[in-house]
Amino acid sequence: MATKKETRENHVSAQRLEAMGSSIVKEIQAGKSPKFVTLARTRSNVHFDTKEGYLKLGAAQEERDFLNFAQTKRFMQTVAVAAKCHKFVKENLHTTIRGLFYQLKFSLGEDVDENIFSEQSESNPLIEDIEVALNLKREDLNLNANRKGVLAGNMKVMDTFGNERLEIDCSRQGRSGWAIPSDVDNDIEFVDVKAKYVLVVEKDALWQRLNEDGLWKKENCILITPQGQAARGTRRLIRKLADNGLPVYVFTDSDAWGWYIYWTIKTGSINLAYIGEDVATPEAKFLGVTMSDLDKYDFLNKMTMHASEVDLKRAQEMLNYQWINKSKEWVTELERMIKSKKKLEQDALQGPRLTFVDDYIREKVKNKEYLP
Amino acid sequence: MATKKETRENHVSAQRLEAMGSSIVKEIQAGKSPKFVTLARTRSNVHFDTKEGYLKLGAAQEERDFLNFAQTKRFMQTVAVAAKCHKFVKENLHTTIRGLFYQLKFSLGEDVDENIFSEQSESNPLIEDIEVALNLKREDLNLNANRKGVLAGNMKVMDTFGNERLEIDCSRQGRSGWAIPSDVDNDIEFVDVKAKYVLVVEKDALWQRLNEDGLWKKENCILITPQGQAARGTRRLIRKLADNGLPVYVFTDSDAWGWYIYWTIKTGSINLAYIGEDVATPEAKFLGVTMSDLDKYDFLNKMTMHASEVDLKRAQEMLNYQWINKSKEWVTELERMIKSKKKLEQDALQGPRLTFVDDYIREKVKNKEYLP
Repeated sequence: MATKKETRENHVSAQRLEAMGSSIVKEIQAGKSPKFVTLARTRSNVHFDTKEGYLKLGAAQEERDFLNFAQTKRFMQTVAVAAKCHKFVKENLHTTIRGLFYQLKFSLGEDVDENIFSEQSESNPLIEDIEVALNLKREDLNLNANRKGVLAGNMKVMDTFGNERLEIDCSRQGRSGWAIPSDVDNDIEFVDVKAKYVLVVEKDALWQRLNEDGLWKKENCILITPQGQAARGTRRLIRKLADNGLPVYVFTDSDAWGWYIYWTIKTGSINLAYIGEDVATPEAKFLGVTMSDLDKYDFLNKMTMHASEVDLKRAQEMLNYQWINKSKEWVTELERMIKSKKKLEQDALQGPRLTFVDDYIREKVKNKEYLP
Repeated sequence: MATKKETRENHVSAQRLEAMGSSIVKEIQAGKSPKFVTLARTRSNVHFDTKEGYLKLGAAQEERDFLNFAQTKRFMQTVAVAAKCHKFVKENLHTTIRGLFYQLKFSLGEDVDENIFSEQSESNPLIEDIEVALNLKREDLNLNANRKGVLAGNMKVMDTFGNERLEIDCSRQGRSGWAIPSDVDNDIEFVDVKAKYVLVVEKDALWQRLNEDGLWKKENCILITPQGQAARGTRRLIRKLADNGLPVYVFTDSDAWGWYIYWTIKTGSINLAYIGEDVATPEAKFLGVTMSDLDKYDFLNKMTMHASEVDLKRAQEMLNYQWINKSKEWVTELERMIKSKKKLEQDALQGPRLTFVDDYIREKVKNKEYLP
């Protein structure tokens, strides 16, 4: 698959971290106060790029100046985090921000009087600072994020374990599926992707249902579940599969949470706007379930649930987003929930028979019945 | 692996469900009010079996009588659930209790006036009733439970997909590991289990750390993470591996949540006391982290966290359980937390270097340094 970072580019991560260090040293040698410049990840610097179709960071910069008393501590912390990441990259070992936190606690406790990393909440934003400043993802800094999500379909994963290259056939993972890792860029490749489209199913329970029916085999699709809200690795993988030319269809509940999952996959999120380009898939379409399914499938009218206050509030909020309310179909969907105070779960499609959900999906894909 | 239910025994499930139905029909034909008898899953009927070492149900029975007005609705619901499960087993298709709930909603809405399954909370206990009455697990009734947990090690899984038998090599799953399914009994086998012991690591983050180091390869162990509290499938798999003669070591945080994870794996839980024998592993030992690690590894004293109110309360509660307070080591552990108001995370072992945690585990296993 042609993507920006296909193979291990530890040397790139190391180089950028070293360049950051060198520039600080040079400033000091020139008698200047060392600075660290990154993009501001404040809400006001996040905007929806109408042309690209996802949330991204603006150009507003944030500067951290060592000799500015208010910024000294944070400057020092940033350098400490960068040094640790450099070490991890050089060692070719991975950890999490929790592991990084304990390493900082361990070494800084020896070198400095003050325990400057007493809470992990202090180290998280610093990592994001470095990700943005160096145009690297934390996965490139050998920091694993939480992983979640499972995949089955006609494609192979070339993974690396120690010095060994492993081939994992995603069509031979049985009931389990292939567990999507945190990092789907470094030392890993996706080959023989023979599927026609990607189907993302909100719930693992329904993924198991569809996997058992061999839907991905019959339809020749890649069947993914993010197991709820998609983790970074799953979002990134969906982006990479879309880069590979596959259409992406998302299938969730018709409620606040389901919609949130869809829009996060499609447009990214405010928190991850700084890597929006890498994780958003604006090409994604919403397959269902929809409130208008109620007109098409009569039995579903017996299957609705009461929309909660959260659902109704969220629907109202979504109507205010210009990238949502520009779509007539979405406005109809949202207004219908608000008016009827009803919602619908994807599981309800198992009502008439367990395999009904397969037919529902097949028909929607065939007739291109999806929302933008 | 020699276990009680090795291969697909759908016919057993179907037979027991049919026997339940026949007995009801016979009672009706004999002019009697049909009855459904199961074991009471009330707290008072759960006890700790000192000899066996796990929580199990007592002998107290619960009877549901069709002509007892207060029990009629529940009786009818139980029969409806049993009929649906029988259908799933016959179809050889799986769903979840949510899928079952919607099937009941669908069909009973047609047959009866009253919508007796408006809330899923009504269908859950009925499934447990049937599990207990028929001595089957819900997985045997083709109902998937939530799944969670990942495994790597020298063993193979023989799984079934459609009509195909698949071999999944758990030593060739790369960074992902093999995702532990809901059902590890039916149509699935574990073969070539060549490992020397099972290591259960609370956090997925640390599992990834140890997997990257190839700990399971170097130590020849089966490396499992339940990803927090262990799901039914993971507990059952640990039980099966113990049945296979492997010692089981559990490695968690030294806090309320970590201890809870350990004791649930070891002694089962009140909720699942009705299948205690199938999911509890009384042979399991607690490897760490322990408060006494603070004496052995000086740096850990810099890594402690403040114990929360929940931690302290839980420690106090555990001191009241006779199967815990009979162990001098556990009493020392718990009292030490209560006194110091400190706790310790397993991640802290990454402080000195990322691979320190490997050495910690190796040494503990080698020296048999674990708590009962």
